[in-house]
Amino acid sequence: MSYRVLSTEIAEHTGESIRLAGWVHRRRVLARVTFLIVRDRAGLAQVVVPAGVPVPPEESVVEVTGTVVANAAAPGGHEVAYGALEVLSEAEPPPVELFRPELEAGLPALLDHAAVTLRHPARRAVFAAGAAAVGAFRATLDGLGFTEIFTPKIVGTATESGANVFALDYFGRPAYLAQSPQFYKQAMVGVFERVYEVAPVFRAEPHDTSRHLAQYLSLDAELGFVRDHRDVMAVLTRVVRAMTEAAGLSEVQMPQEIPVVHFAEALRLAGADPDEPDLAPEHERALGAWALREHGSDFVYVEGYPMAKRPFYTHPQPSEPRWSNSFDLLFRGLELVTGGQRRHRYSDYVAVLGEQAAGLEGYLEAFRHGMPPHGGFAIGLERFLARLCGAANVRETTLFPRDLHRLTP
Amino acid sequence: MSYRVLSTEIAEHTGESIRLAGWVHRRRVLARVTFLIVRDRAGLAQVVVPAGVPVPPEESVVEVTGTVVANAAAPGGHEVAYGALEVLSEAEPPPVELFRPELEAGLPALLDHAAVTLRHPARRAVFAAGAAAVGAFRATLDGLGFTEIFTPKIVGTATESGANVFALDYFGRPAYLAQSPQFYKQAMVGVFERVYEVAPVFRAEPHDTSRHLAQYLSLDAELGFVRDHRDVMAVLTRVVRAMTEAAGLSEVQMPQEIPVVHFAEALRLAGADPDEPDLAPEHERALGAWALREHGSDFVYVEGYPMAKRPFYTHPQPSEPRWSNSFDLLFRGLELVTGGQRRHRYSDYVAVLGEQAAGLEGYLEAFRHGMPPHGGFAIGLERFLARLCGAANVRETTLFPRDLHRLTP
Repeated sequence: MSYRVLSTEIAEHTGESIRLAGWVHRRRVLARVTFLIVRDRAGLAQVVVPAGVPVPPEESVVEVTGTVVANAAAPGGHEVAYGALEVLSEAEPPPVELFRPELEAGLPALLDHAAVTLRHPARRAVFAAGAAAVGAFRATLDGLGFTEIFTPKIVGTATESGANVFALDYFGRPAYLAQSPQFYKQAMVGVFERVYEVAPVFRAEPHDTSRHLAQYLSLDAELGFVRDHRDVMAVLTRVVRAMTEAAGLSEVQMPQEIPVVHFAEALRLAGADPDEPDLAPEHERALGAWALREHGSDFVYVEGYPMAKRPFYTHPQPSEPRWSNSFDLLFRGLELVTGGQRRHRYSDYVAVLGEQAAGLEGYLEAFRHGMPPHGGFAIGLERFLARLCGAANVRETTLFPRDLHRLTP
Repeated sequence: MSYRVLSTEIAEHTGESIRLAGWVHRRRVLARVTFLIVRDRAGLAQVVVPAGVPVPPEESVVEVTGTVVANAAAPGGHEVAYGALEVLSEAEPPPVELFRPELEAGLPALLDHAAVTLRHPARRAVFAAGAAAVGAFRATLDGLGFTEIFTPKIVGTATESGANVFALDYFGRPAYLAQSPQFYKQAMVGVFERVYEVAPVFRAEPHDTSRHLAQYLSLDAELGFVRDHRDVMAVLTRVVRAMTEAAGLSEVQMPQEIPVVHFAEALRLAGADPDEPDLAPEHERALGAWALREHGSDFVYVEGYPMAKRPFYTHPQPSEPRWSNSFDLLFRGLELVTGGQRRHRYSDYVAVLGEQAAGLEGYLEAFRHGMPPHGGFAIGLERFLARLCGAANVRETTLFPRDLHRLTP
């Protein structure tokens, strides 16, 4: 049997007999000849089949042997002259035509038939880019001495807040799906100093919006021995730069230094009331526009969010404790990453948690027994990809999304 | 402020003023001097502190500046002569003494106080090895053209079987935690041909054994265009070799070719009744001993398990369909990996599922529209680490284990 060659490699085998394996991306039956486009994991290749040879319908799985021929008119400049064709699996016609340059399907059809629509080269490219971005996240942090960790997704206490949490029957006891690995990654700073985790997190988000999912992939990092949140931002900038380059989905404006504005200044730049406790979506959009206009940057950091709007583990800004040492990173006018310095003294946690401290003893043990100043961040992969490729809805950048209405496929 | 140097790097800075940052691993107060051992993410370093200078208790977080001095009597041949010491966070005495070469704690104490006991160098080494092994899993598959995927952990239908599944309240509807990414990784073969996922899976395991967890990390791979399960085993062998080498936890006997025995032959070698439908733990142990004795191998493949004992998606052995094209990989006499060739024809699924097919329509859509012959495997990380480091219980190789009784920390 001939050697299997990927569609993108045929030019290297001109004149040789090779074997292609893949899906019938398209068959065009003409009077004298059938053009068969084979799709494999690398791309597409054209096979010229004599009239009369049966070619199975689109999406059937085939193996084709033939000879590679240079042909300036063929896509890629080379094609395969038919020798033999074996059908490994014959397909029913797909619910959406996958050979068209653009998928002609609305979002519900796209998602209902994800197992098939994801085969479209444009859809596949999004998720290949996502895999590359996650690889870059890890490689950047590995290079900085981080260690990968794997933490529980079933927890006894809601981590971020009591709302938006999925409840579970855990051997007859109540339990919850983890909304973040926050407590665990902090505890693990006590072990490895610098840790990251790539794992699903769960939010019982009751609102049906274009940017929330019931499950998303959280790229979490946490590092010890920081001076403040600025050290965390320095790591994040390297991570995001590497992820953006690895994904390669669009031209991104990212200067050497990402602009940083304090929350109070951000309100002013966005034309918001100076007493606003948080940035509304229109403020984020205004800041995104400002960063692009003034700094040629698709990214902008906002630091110093009011303590009142940040979770209890957030470290205050020492010079003025109503502000926090936390930040958001906005990407094209939308919050992409949240992070900051965390409290590290046991007594601070006891003071801020009050009576709640008793329920969080396991979490607090790390702080009782010595924790360095530390901080971290979390990136939502689907939202990052959506911004990168201009998708209006995070469901377009999730393989099999979960939301208020969607539990299948 | 002096430059921070890691404990393992001080020898490169002899005569220089440097800064160490880390935890007080041990303080030994003598009449004229205090020996302070600082532990950081890289290892340990000794600081010689003059008598009278207060050194905080074990596990406190400190920054020490001083001069690196060669001293043949010091651990590593170098030590730091005290210049100044800053306490970043003072600790209460830990529940278990972490400076002893062996942790003197039973399993419950080890796990109840995981946030602290994981800091022990011997504990930390296990999880650093785990991270390295997972990195090797990914790197090996990346090198073979695989693409990383991220799939839903909340599902509408139990994947592997109706038992042992955690039920969830999903916005008022019943849902389940995924017991494996099986259906999704198969569907994604239709998109990328070769895929892997590293993610938690969930089993409501009602038995309190030393080798079962309610959540474990599943290293899943699936690949298309295989001839049969032997192609899957070839990939798995490369993966396991790389993982074993990267972990470096123990001397592993792994010949170039891992021995393979058919299930029927495995029963004979293990001295079991030829009508046994599965291998009992004592049979697995006997086979492990046989493989080491006859082939100098800690690993042995058993292939051809009876179809009756394998899940419905398993591909039968074409020559004799009561056997399957599936396999287990035993490591030191315990099942470590399960895998095999899967069915790939839609009609085969419809035939085998019967009335159940209606409930699995989303899953079956991939097969309806063309799937190549394919197969895959799943490795449990905690079990792999336990076998590697000789731990009797998988809870010892899980950061924060979840089981019938344990939901915290």
